Amino acid sequence: MKKIFLIGMGPGLPEFLTVQAIETLKRIHVFFMLEKEGRGKEELLRMRRDILDLHLGKDAYRLVVAQSPSRRMASSDYNEGVKVWHDEKHALFQRLIDEELEEGQNGALLLWGDPAIYDQTVSLVSDLASRSEGRLDFEIVPGITSVQMLAARHRIPLNRVGESITITTGRHAENCDPATIDNAVVMLDYNASFQRFRDQDMDLYWGGYLGCEDEILVSGPVDEITDDLLRIKSEVREKKGWLMDIYLLRRRKDER
Amino acid sequence: MKKIFLIGMGPGLPEFLTVQAIETLKRIHVFFMLEKEGRGKEELLRMRRDILDLHLGKDAYRLVVAQSPSRRMASSDYNEGVKVWHDEKHALFQRLIDEELEEGQNGALLLWGDPAIYDQTVSLVSDLASRSEGRLDFEIVPGITSVQMLAARHRIPLNRVGESITITTGRHAENCDPATIDNAVVMLDYNASFQRFRDQDMDLYWGGYLGCEDEILVSGPVDEITDDLLRIKSEVREKKGWLMDIYLLRRRKDER
Ligand SMILES: C[S@@+](CC[C@H](N)C(=O)[O-])C[C@H]1O[C@@H](n2cnc3c(N)ncnc32)[C@H](O)[C@@H]1O
Ligand SMILES: C[S@@+](CC[C@H](N)C(=O)[O-])C[C@H]1O[C@@H](n2cnc3c(N)ncnc32)[C@H](O)[C@@H]1O
Repeated sequence: MKKIFLIGMGPGLPEFLTVQAIETLKRIHVFFMLEKEGRGKEELLRMRRDILDLHLGKDAYRLVVAQSPSRRMASSDYNEGVKVWHDEKHALFQRLIDEELEEGQNGALLLWGDPAIYDQTVSLVSDLASRSEGRLDFEIVPGITSVQMLAARHRIPLNRVGESITITTGRHAENCDPATIDNAVVMLDYNASFQRFRDQDMDLYWGGYLGCEDEILVSGPVDEITDDLLRIKSEVREKKGWLMDIYLLRRRKDER
Repeated sequence: MKKIFLIGMGPGLPEFLTVQAIETLKRIHVFFMLEKEGRGKEELLRMRRDILDLHLGKDAYRLVVAQSPSRRMASSDYNEGVKVWHDEKHALFQRLIDEELEEGQNGALLLWGDPAIYDQTVSLVSDLASRSEGRLDFEIVPGITSVQMLAARHRIPLNRVGESITITTGRHAENCDPATIDNAVVMLDYNASFQRFRDQDMDLYWGGYLGCEDEILVSGPVDEITDDLLRIKSEVREKKGWLMDIYLLRRRKDER
């Protein structure tokens, strides 16, 4: 039997790991890291290495870095594009487990934020395990997600009294009727879709590189801050070469 | 200046605390605990004490336990009931800060799960701070929420490809049109509202006392497991005297 641990690492700095995550690190024989294309890759790898160096000792662990298949953003059918990408990742994981992990060993991936939120790795490893005829097991260690980090840094609750909490994608924010959103966290937004929510009496709570060294927070009425935020986003993206951001859109209510 | 830290403690056992939360504990002069009515109260207090004992040394901290005002569940208007309760809590917190915390000291509350999710304490302390004319500051330390714990233990992602994530209340699950829910995590459900989702082609992933010693997991098609789950819920509630549970409802899709 081989076992894969999918460990939520939180949003960046080592201080967001839980005790459970740290204890789990100590049981791992091989860490797998998937290197994505794009300018942030060295930094994202370095942050994972920092965590391992800190808790296991500098370079005192076995690390296998593989190139992650890149997503076909150009594909006309979103779900089809995701499927091809999924299949390629599937083959890569199978190879890593076959070739790099021995019987009885534990492998792990440090997953950004929490493994359950907009990360395909859980379903991927779950597929592999269910096809393995009992030869592959897996376990999930939850981590602080960027959604929580956003709320914590802005010092706001995710829900107001009686309200539901919605977490959605830039793709949805870009295509939905703005009137259908009252209170939603938007992730994976490549097109600054918050712009569509002007003249809607909405507030915006935005965070870039949350829980990382370069964290930036911006908040205020969408109508007032959109232009500034677009400028800030393009400046930091230019300076660092990459940007990870998330935001909450909240419709103002006459309340209290 | 006085400062209040709202520290997410995760879903129960001390292993879910983050490094940041543990470091924060060490900077606190006074811990406040609100004791709620009901049969779980000793156990909920004990779990918080266990965390403090473990990280700060047995009884090596100052603890102030106060009676939490109880929510008027009977009130006809839900929002009005919440408001009265909020005002009472407000007065209690103000008194605790005035009387139990000295100038320059840090106070803290260990909040169950993550402070941003269905917990009124953030808005309450935020109100107090904004009315304090700069004499009260506060900070939030995120914690693992029961929502993440549910996904981790069932080894499922919270979203399927392209889908949004909804977190909602038993009250909503009880009153909404079941056809409007495709994929939702339900919290604060006192009436086993998952029963309403029979004959809907839905799966249920349920967790009781997640991340605690008595954790229970149940999953399967709503149509098949509802009766068993109702029985299990009433058995454990009888045995322990209280139950904390959460579940994900997921409509089956023809996919992959
Ligand atoms: C593929 S998803 C993974 C989310 C991750 N599983 C989590 O729990 O945060 C990546 C998206 O998460 C958000 N994100 C993740 N980490 C972030 C951070 N440190 N600061 C801001 N946004 C972040 C961004 O919206 C980004 O597009
Ligand atoms: C007032 S809310 C607080 C939620 C908390 N802030 C969190 O992040 O989990 C209480 C609800 O959270 C859920 N809950 C919290 N802890 C739980 C646990 N350990 N197991 C199952 N459900 C839990 C239940 O639905 C419960 O009714």
